[in-house]
Amino acid sequence: MEIPVDDGIVLYTYWRSSAAYRVRIGLELKGLAWEARPVHLVRDGGEQHLDAYRALNPQQQVPTLLHEGHVLTQSLAILEYLDERFPQVPLLPADAAGRARVRALAQLVACDIHPINNLRVMQYLERSLQLPADARTQWTLHWIAEGFAAMEALLANSRDTGTFCHGDRPGLADLCLLPQLYNAHRFGLDLAPYPTLRRIEAACQALDAFDRARPENQPDAA
Amino acid sequence: MEIPVDDGIVLYTYWRSSAAYRVRIGLELKGLAWEARPVHLVRDGGEQHLDAYRALNPQQQVPTLLHEGHVLTQSLAILEYLDERFPQVPLLPADAAGRARVRALAQLVACDIHPINNLRVMQYLERSLQLPADARTQWTLHWIAEGFAAMEALLANSRDTGTFCHGDRPGLADLCLLPQLYNAHRFGLDLAPYPTLRRIEAACQALDAFDRARPENQPDAA
Repeated sequence: MEIPVDDGIVLYTYWRSSAAYRVRIGLELKGLAWEARPVHLVRDGGEQHLDAYRALNPQQQVPTLLHEGHVLTQSLAILEYLDERFPQVPLLPADAAGRARVRALAQLVACDIHPINNLRVMQYLERSLQLPADARTQWTLHWIAEGFAAMEALLANSRDTGTFCHGDRPGLADLCLLPQLYNAHRFGLDLAPYPTLRRIEAACQALDAFDRARPENQPDAA
Repeated sequence: MEIPVDDGIVLYTYWRSSAAYRVRIGLELKGLAWEARPVHLVRDGGEQHLDAYRALNPQQQVPTLLHEGHVLTQSLAILEYLDERFPQVPLLPADAAGRARVRALAQLVACDIHPINNLRVMQYLERSLQLPADARTQWTLHWIAEGFAAMEALLANSRDTGTFCHGDRPGLADLCLLPQLYNAHRFGLDLAPYPTLRRIEAACQALDAFDRARPENQPDAA
């Protein structure tokens, strides 16, 4: 189902960016029509550094979302905006404590795992600190494992956890978890210590919206 | 002004933690009574790693906030919860696009500057990668400078910027910016390239709420 919008939604995205991947899942869950404008983060030094993109997003990162003349940055801010403007298929629960729980789980990933392993940090480790490839991989695995251990504890010990991170509908926390699990697989992390995360991953993967948003299903996938 | 609450607010905090500092400013701006429970992040290997604290916050970080039986983690999730439960002195504007802008500015700091320079990352750089002190300082300065350059551009080029990051009332973005500026001063970053950030810093520092929340004014300040 696609809901037509007066003024279309444009998403600057990169197939492997987990921050863009979060927003893609949100758009698909809500059944919104959107146009993908791929930004290649590696080719020619990274298209995110081109002047035209930088004028849109001074952080020179994806995603950036255009809607009704607004230029929106930061994946979680974009998803909250979409949730406020298109409340069908809500990404947050109705009660304040539930919303705080879901936001905290989302931020566990979006603040405390992903940015530490992001492209620009990995480039700094390689170029400025001359860290060899195996030490860079250990770096990535360390921060994912530390974050996942906390997330597993928070999810496994709460009665609020259901089929998904919060109850029986996917929401903001799942939108952050799945892209982070994609990265974990990519780097070969042993996921045995995180049975709850794996169970939720399987539940999400069974949904069409998550499938359509996957990196491999993007027009710019390598 | 202190607003009594049926069930008190308890904040696990550390004077120098910039994530806890954000929440302290929010509590003070809203005039809420709150009890500080200091968690010393360095002494004896870090009290955040003790079993009792870990049971509250599996991420072993501050802040953690207790309210009406809820255990809340992640500073931005806590602040959104406080804003929903205590809407006096709102931390977010009323319109969806304005809210997205303020959240994006807050997340620029809370996702893309602060976690990369956080204590556990600095400890990994020192202990696992044997990075010398001057290279660790360069690391910190690099990520603050990169984030501040983007934030300065976003603020200086927008008509939504007022006395504060968004209009003429302090909000969520200012609550993130001031603690990050505190860190920038601590590490000796040259702030000349960020005139808008400095102007907003001065406006915030003139307010009692920001003053009461300052690291130096906490009971556990060294």
